[in-house]
Amino acid sequence: SRSIDLAVIPGDGIGQEVVTQGLKVLNAVLPSDVKLETKEYDLGARRWHRTGETLPDAELEELKGHDAILLGAIGDPSVPSGVLERGLLLKLRFAFDHFVNLRPSKLFPNTATPLAGRPEIDFVVVREGTEGPYTGNGGSLRTGTEHEVATEVSVNTAYGVERVVRDAFARAAARPRKKLTLVHKNNVLVYAGHLWKNIFDTVAAEYPEVTTDYLHVDAATIFFVTQPERFDVIVTDNLFGDILTDLAAAVTGGIGLAASGNINPTGAFPSMFEPVHGTAPDIAGQGKADPTATILSVALLLRHLGYESEAARIEEAVSADLAEREGKAARSTDEIGDALAVRVAS
Amino acid sequence: SRSIDLAVIPGDGIGQEVVTQGLKVLNAVLPSDVKLETKEYDLGARRWHRTGETLPDAELEELKGHDAILLGAIGDPSVPSGVLERGLLLKLRFAFDHFVNLRPSKLFPNTATPLAGRPEIDFVVVREGTEGPYTGNGGSLRTGTEHEVATEVSVNTAYGVERVVRDAFARAAARPRKKLTLVHKNNVLVYAGHLWKNIFDTVAAEYPEVTTDYLHVDAATIFFVTQPERFDVIVTDNLFGDILTDLAAAVTGGIGLAASGNINPTGAFPSMFEPVHGTAPDIAGQGKADPTATILSVALLLRHLGYESEAARIEEAVSADLAEREGKAARSTDEIGDALAVRVAS
Ligand SMILES: CC(C)[C@H](C(=O)O)[C@@H](O)C(=O)O
Ligand SMILES: CC(C)[C@H](C(=O)O)[C@@H](O)C(=O)O
Repeated sequence: SRSIDLAVIPGDGIGQEVVTQGLKVLNAVLPSDVKLETKEYDLGARRWHRTGETLPDAELEELKGHDAILLGAIGDPSVPSGVLERGLLLKLRFAFDHFVNLRPSKLFPNTATPLAGRPEIDFVVVREGTEGPYTGNGGSLRTGTEHEVATEVSVNTAYGVERVVRDAFARAAARPRKKLTLVHKNNVLVYAGHLWKNIFDTVAAEYPEVTTDYLHVDAATIFFVTQPERFDVIVTDNLFGDILTDLAAAVTGGIGLAASGNINPTGAFPSMFEPVHGTAPDIAGQGKADPTATILSVALLLRHLGYESEAARIEEAVSADLAEREGKAARSTDEIGDALAVRVAS
Repeated sequence: SRSIDLAVIPGDGIGQEVVTQGLKVLNAVLPSDVKLETKEYDLGARRWHRTGETLPDAELEELKGHDAILLGAIGDPSVPSGVLERGLLLKLRFAFDHFVNLRPSKLFPNTATPLAGRPEIDFVVVREGTEGPYTGNGGSLRTGTEHEVATEVSVNTAYGVERVVRDAFARAAARPRKKLTLVHKNNVLVYAGHLWKNIFDTVAAEYPEVTTDYLHVDAATIFFVTQPERFDVIVTDNLFGDILTDLAAAVTGGIGLAASGNINPTGAFPSMFEPVHGTAPDIAGQGKADPTATILSVALLLRHLGYESEAARIEEAVSADLAEREGKAARSTDEIGDALAVRVAS
């Protein structure tokens, strides 16, 4: 019989609320022969305030043993910026070599896009997850004085770029439109840019069926708002991917719907699934958070573990749910979770 | 009697066409007692193809002697990416210490914003122009092999950050809303981020009348499309500023209207004014390019040189011209230039 051994990191703010709904829908969608085991990890701002710890080695080791990780949201204004990001979230992404940060963007029915004319939007960003300006490679000299120099080093390797570019080509080849856009800034960041472009062009030769395209990151933001329908799959570095996927979430109805997977496609380490949104402390505990992004992240999790039809069922349920909400009153976190659980079960 | 000694770099593609209109309006707006002298510099893709030169020392030296520089656009697909950017455009910005890259964004009447509901947009981005990931500080090891490592170093100094932050506070203090937002990514780029944040907070204490705010760059892109009216003045680093100002141009009706100034506020070197758009080789030579961004850049140039009322007259003319174009046929580059020249002269 099949089983899923899931680590759950609810985190802070609305994290707990949305994760509860994610698990509700996961339970509802799984066939009865699949045994779901979950273990919760108390990590995040509260833990840090209590013990000063972000992610102790023992827990990192234990997390390795799970099939996948579901994460709510991490962070709180009371924690100095960077402590939990570097010490927990990015630590997990780097330790588990999550080199594919997968972020689909789709304009669902009845979602409030800020774009006039409601263009058709259905693309996926394959964001590199283990290199670039996110490596923590930098420092500061004469800190706090008028002579301070602070550096941040973007590190890019052929090994790291090639594996994510290959993943993106494979994803593009499997989609109906078969189009892949590389986004970088190779007219200014010439060293990293040329590495990305050369590898992209080399791998492209193996995928003659995939149409390719290159855009500078600044130009890409223009097309995100003027012509988002031109995108199918986008591959880009860690920082550009961070920026573009928030913008993508905004144009497709807000980060309440944006799902993501931090994926290690080799299976050497568990992959981690999380909504793109943050902890939203202003609405935490009020049952107002939209759990849809987490529920869609559960779909990505299921797809990653091989449960394709269950993943598709969740995505269809979200689509149908949104299509029918027109004119309805705002629903609570729990009500949305319930509605989606009912849909996927039937 | 007063005089302006202007260097003109038309550049490539539509550069020549839009610069011609910029000069036409400049001539029309200047009081008759101001003597305008211009000298054209043949720099850009054609020059590079012909001589292999991007910006020889002698010309750089000569450019120093002018009061200001008006630049059209630089670049062509036939030139390898980075050659003209690093060898000419960025070389000028760095050599002339253009540390304030000023980019106003305003939603003029009758412009086709992709945003539903036409929010009120009127903000200015103060982009740092001489540091960050633009320093060219990087390299690659084992280039072209499967063991390649390419790095890009973002260099940030207290000296460089403080002067641009001070400039931004002064600009914010002089505007009716008096609001300044710092955009960075200090939860990930902790060294550079803390330098920026500390200096921002220190200078803020000297400007109690200015309301301040901090946003991560990813979140800022969301607000650019969902709530652009929240911004007044934004200060940010070179790369984030590059990205945000293209997005700002897109939401305010396209880069056909986006002006910019590469300013050295000390006056030690000439400042340079240019439209944000590129060379648009696909429409070059057809009289289709919109010269408005260049004409608005001329307004920034005039303001920088102390001709405030002339600068305002150009901006009012653009506003009035756009307000009346509703329902009119598309006009040629020349017709737009003529219309604005007539308006500013009267
Ligand atoms: C919280 C932060 C470290 C993170 C990132 O920059 O990757 C977030 O913005 C995201 O996109 O998941
Ligand atoms: C052409 C390029 C080097 C330049 C930049 O990145 O600064 C352009 O995008 C701009 O914004 O002026």
